Amino acid sequence: MRELRVGLVGCGQHALMYLLPALHYAPIQLVSVCDTNAERRLRAKRQFGAEADFEGIGAMLRGPTIDAVIACGPPDMHRAAAIAAMDAGLNVFVEKPPANDLAGAMQIAEASRANGRHCMVGFMKRFALRYRQARELAQRRAFGKTTHVSIKYAHWNCPDLHWMLVYMTVHTLDLMRFFAGELARMSIERAETAGQFTFTVQAVSASGTLVSLVTSSQEPRVKEHVEITGEGEVVVVRNVIELEYHRRVSPTKLFTSDLHDVQLLRPDFAIPNPEQNTLFLQGYAGEMQEFASACIEERAPSVTIADGVQAMRLAQLLARNTTGSFDLME
Amino acid sequence: MRELRVGLVGCGQHALMYLLPALHYAPIQLVSVCDTNAERRLRAKRQFGAEADFEGIGAMLRGPTIDAVIACGPPDMHRAAAIAAMDAGLNVFVEKPPANDLAGAMQIAEASRANGRHCMVGFMKRFALRYRQARELAQRRAFGKTTHVSIKYAHWNCPDLHWMLVYMTVHTLDLMRFFAGELARMSIERAETAGQFTFTVQAVSASGTLVSLVTSSQEPRVKEHVEITGEGEVVVVRNVIELEYHRRVSPTKLFTSDLHDVQLLRPDFAIPNPEQNTLFLQGYAGEMQEFASACIEERAPSVTIADGVQAMRLAQLLARNTTGSFDLME
Amino acid sequence: MRELRVGLVGCGQHALMYLLPALHYAPIQLVSVCDTNAERRLRAKRQFGAEADFEGIGAMLRGPTIDAVIACGPPDMHRAAAIAAMDAGLNVFVEKPPANDLAGAMQIAEASRANGRHCMVGFMKRFALRYRQARELAQRRAFGKTTHVSIKYAHWNCPDLHWMLVYMTVHTLDLMRFFAGELARMSIERAETAGQFTFTVQAVSASGTLVSLVTSSQEPRVKEHVEITGEGEVVVVRNVIELEYHRRVSPTKLFTSDLHDVQLLRPDFAIPNPEQNTLFLQGYAGEMQEFASACIEERAPSVTIADGVQAMRLAQLLARNTTGSFDLME
Amino acid sequence: MRELRVGLVGCGQHALMYLLPALHYAPIQLVSVCDTNAERRLRAKRQFGAEADFEGIGAMLRGPTIDAVIACGPPDMHRAAAIAAMDAGLNVFVEKPPANDLAGAMQIAEASRANGRHCMVGFMKRFALRYRQARELAQRRAFGKTTHVSIKYAHWNCPDLHWMLVYMTVHTLDLMRFFAGELARMSIERAETAGQFTFTVQAVSASGTLVSLVTSSQEPRVKEHVEITGEGEVVVVRNVIELEYHRRVSPTKLFTSDLHDVQLLRPDFAIPNPEQNTLFLQGYAGEMQEFASACIEERAPSVTIADGVQAMRLAQLLARNTTGSFDLME
Repeated sequence: MRELRVGLVGCGQHALMYLLPALHYAPIQLVSVCDTNAERRLRAKRQFGAEADFEGIGAMLRGPTIDAVIACGPPDMHRAAAIAAMDAGLNVFVEKPPANDLAGAMQIAEASRANGRHCMVGFMKRFALRYRQARELAQRRAFGKTTHVSIKYAHWNCPDLHWMLVYMTVHTLDLMRFFAGELARMSIERAETAGQFTFTVQAVSASGTLVSLVTSSQEPRVKEHVEITGEGEVVVVRNVIELEYHRRVSPTKLFTSDLHDVQLLRPDFAIPNPEQNTLFLQGYAGEMQEFASACIEERAPSVTIADGVQAMRLAQLLARNTTGSFDLME
Repeated sequence: MRELRVGLVGCGQHALMYLLPALHYAPIQLVSVCDTNAERRLRAKRQFGAEADFEGIGAMLRGPTIDAVIACGPPDMHRAAAIAAMDAGLNVFVEKPPANDLAGAMQIAEASRANGRHCMVGFMKRFALRYRQARELAQRRAFGKTTHVSIKYAHWNCPDLHWMLVYMTVHTLDLMRFFAGELARMSIERAETAGQFTFTVQAVSASGTLVSLVTSSQEPRVKEHVEITGEGEVVVVRNVIELEYHRRVSPTKLFTSDLHDVQLLRPDFAIPNPEQNTLFLQGYAGEMQEFASACIEERAPSVTIADGVQAMRLAQLLARNTTGSFDLME
Repeated sequence: MRELRVGLVGCGQHALMYLLPALHYAPIQLVSVCDTNAERRLRAKRQFGAEADFEGIGAMLRGPTIDAVIACGPPDMHRAAAIAAMDAGLNVFVEKPPANDLAGAMQIAEASRANGRHCMVGFMKRFALRYRQARELAQRRAFGKTTHVSIKYAHWNCPDLHWMLVYMTVHTLDLMRFFAGELARMSIERAETAGQFTFTVQAVSASGTLVSLVTSSQEPRVKEHVEITGEGEVVVVRNVIELEYHRRVSPTKLFTSDLHDVQLLRPDFAIPNPEQNTLFLQGYAGEMQEFASACIEERAPSVTIADGVQAMRLAQLLARNTTGSFDLME
Repeated sequence: MRELRVGLVGCGQHALMYLLPALHYAPIQLVSVCDTNAERRLRAKRQFGAEADFEGIGAMLRGPTIDAVIACGPPDMHRAAAIAAMDAGLNVFVEKPPANDLAGAMQIAEASRANGRHCMVGFMKRFALRYRQARELAQRRAFGKTTHVSIKYAHWNCPDLHWMLVYMTVHTLDLMRFFAGELARMSIERAETAGQFTFTVQAVSASGTLVSLVTSSQEPRVKEHVEITGEGEVVVVRNVIELEYHRRVSPTKLFTSDLHDVQLLRPDFAIPNPEQNTLFLQGYAGEMQEFASACIEERAPSVTIADGVQAMRLAQLLARNTTGSFDLME
């Protein structure tokens, strides 16, 4: 298989603006599109050159041959489409959240196991250029053990808590595990004002990395800030696109500044190329490349429904109206 | 006409990555694609859902009805395609540079005049979100007269001087006029080292605005920095995407800092939406929206071959191996 | 009293470079200096024009009349000097930490109570220009309730944990209370690698503000970052000197950027004036102004030994080798 | 001579806040102060521990033995004090501008020559930490020839053009020569609005380096920005305190970003030490260290009245109400 033939379920704005454009950077051919809304599916079909369009996923699966399915719509549709696709023997990619709740995510995981098919979950932040580089830096010998991971993710008002948790917070619940590994215990505090929430999470990973998470719907802009501390080194990613790496400093030079100490990666937006392209910077191109590679190489993608289940499990913990400490290894 | 039907001439990487994706943000339907290379034109046709493909522009113009042509390829192809399209009664958009030299640009201008058709030139930086905002700020009454425009544009090595001038420098030669208006006189200095060039340009516009331009192929990265000074106010655009506006300060407060004094616009890349999308930030979406609007409203676009001629005229001045002062109003 | 006459105890580098220069910005006259090291005390005397010098504080208190004492040296000297000064009926300023441990700080508090004299503690960060502005912004009606305070404070290796806690961490333990008010409960996690420590602290103030603190000796540089979130607004202070204020955004404009949304305060180091002076930016000038005003107006300064006791109490909690949640209101 | 004994002429705010505090970082002892205003000179005497005070420089030169004079006040006082000091056989430091006009500066130069004494001029920006580092970087072999120097210096309204040129612009007229070497030719444009001025200067140094200068009193804040371009490398100093160094990039990597490509120097204001101290960042400490060293080593300081004469010569060129090109080597 040189090129993955895919069918898209869900032709709304997000698919049109991020997932379909990202397909062009991967060995993927869009074959079918599926949406209950005819205008939406015909627009997607025409703008991205699909061969066929369908009202429902059942018909799409019986249509022109496809190797895999991509689903992008409401969470429960993700769940239904993922299970239908894997039951039909196809690998599937679902946008996050994979389902509306933990139970739904676990149904997908079960369908994956039962069918021996893979469900990749669209945690595109794992493929954002700077986050990949940050993780690589943190895995170098010079970095030492990762002692601390800090994530701040703030954004504007959400319609309600469930919405905040499954659409927004879920990103950072996954990023904690991406940077710190599996979590062993966690304590949560929350503040609610005028129906909006701020959560602070303090966690420790199985390997002893401390994690601090702040996630809030009390800010006027969408902000994201990540810091990963090692032993005498730190890497910071600001605003998703800018990375600063602070190298270990010789003890004799602690009070001075060397040119070598801080290194910076920043896109130069004066030129159009992939390094400056938001599809790459935000991770959409990278997740599609990984999905295509994994399908073509018949292996599991680097982020699967197992990660989706863990993220939904953490979201469920935050949703409960209790504060306190939770043992996550039981 | 609700939607512009266009034919694309030239299906290379740049069209695929920037112009064709930008069409989706404008009322434009891609009808035909044209390229001498079959693989390229079939890929573009499939990925963006064109109806028909052609080896040459002549055949394309005789194919399915189109309202306008978009050309993206080598400069001389721009010239030829623009003239052919306008001779066939169609408006045309050409990527920059519009032609290989001033004479070529003037031929397009003549074809535009003779046919009463418009040729828009792809100076996309005029549509970059921050540059549009900077210009609007500079036109507010509070800003006062624009006293100074400063542009720094630096990038890595170019194959030769002609290449540097028509592919890279031409952007800033146009931006000078965009921000300062028509130029009245100009003096040029150049430095050459190892076949690479730096130019400094000092100009004065017809309305008395001073202009400083630095353009260089001696730097390791592609950098762009613009500052526009008024009377007691200034607006700065860094790295194309970040704008700082420094407001007039009351004389009694010159030595203090007020919260109100500096305002900042910066994309929040943590969220995918048009304000954070490079197609908008770099201007590709905006130029396609303007081309579609102008064609549909049967008016001249805001940047035409007349601007292309002026930019090529300035590029020709820089190409001459002389320094000194030039009167541009004669 | 138009000008405060003070005696300085401890003439080391820190006093010479920060406290003595800061005196010049307050109505303070340096009368006496005191240090067991003759070279140090004579240098301070000469460079800052004191009238008299002494080997010990007892002699100094019996020397030329002074209104107040400033102590800057090892923590236990702070304690001893503070008590001696107050026993002699004088107000006193001590550098942080006020004592070597909680018990020492409580002795000072007792001496303050018993003598009816004030002991100001040198938490200069409370007087740093940006932190004062941040706190004022957070107290405006538009800001709403403070929902979250986040403090990151990282620095290079410390000799041992006690040193880290009383010299470095103590600053942020005080800043938490400065921005969030009295804390009600707190949970702590720590990681130790190669004798260096990172602590994460998750707290809730009596008024319900969430607090996240990260303090680490695992980074190669001294970094400080503060964020204060309200209801739909946030103020960020980066690197002590730069403040960003994000205003509430109208719900209809969440997906766009207005010029008004983000306001920035940043020193312009191209000019020498107090707004750019590190003595003001870091808070040394401000704390001396407050000490002088409080003494002259015969009132308690805005930060006293009561705050010092609270900071030392929190430091003691961190020093215990236990993680878990602590009720701070008992 | 282990320590330089100096007399200060002029005890105003600037001396008190910048020059006198800077003395503490150099092997300098303040012996005498001189000012016609008794309150000012007594305050300086007391705050900085001088032995004696005088109304006039003549009396001061006949007072306690001093090795050198520092003058800080109105420009014509600089001239008079410099000549008097050198006539008395002493080296002298004068704040900039050294005199009120070119003729005055030349008188100082003549007195220096006639007496064989040195007059250092207070172009402190040459000693600002980042500018020294920028110049060192530009002199490394890897940097190649300096092809371009760009300086932007903008600030708020000035009382008149002369004031702007001799108090503000003079700094950058000196910095041009500091970074680019002696200038060979120069062309000037100016814009005047409401009695305020913007100048653009385009120059070429004797060694072929291009120079762009913008200096304006039309902006609401005091801004300074310097860029030095070599062959494939560039060093940028923003806001006096932040340095970015962009290294040469291998031609095969032009379209990617390596961690190594951009290096950053930025003070960490969370800690008080000389690297973060404005006296060092702005250059006051460095210029006093150089003055002391030069006097003690009986050599010329690195910046002398010859540089002062050149800066005043350039200021005079800008003051003339003509635009055009000037040959500076005649």
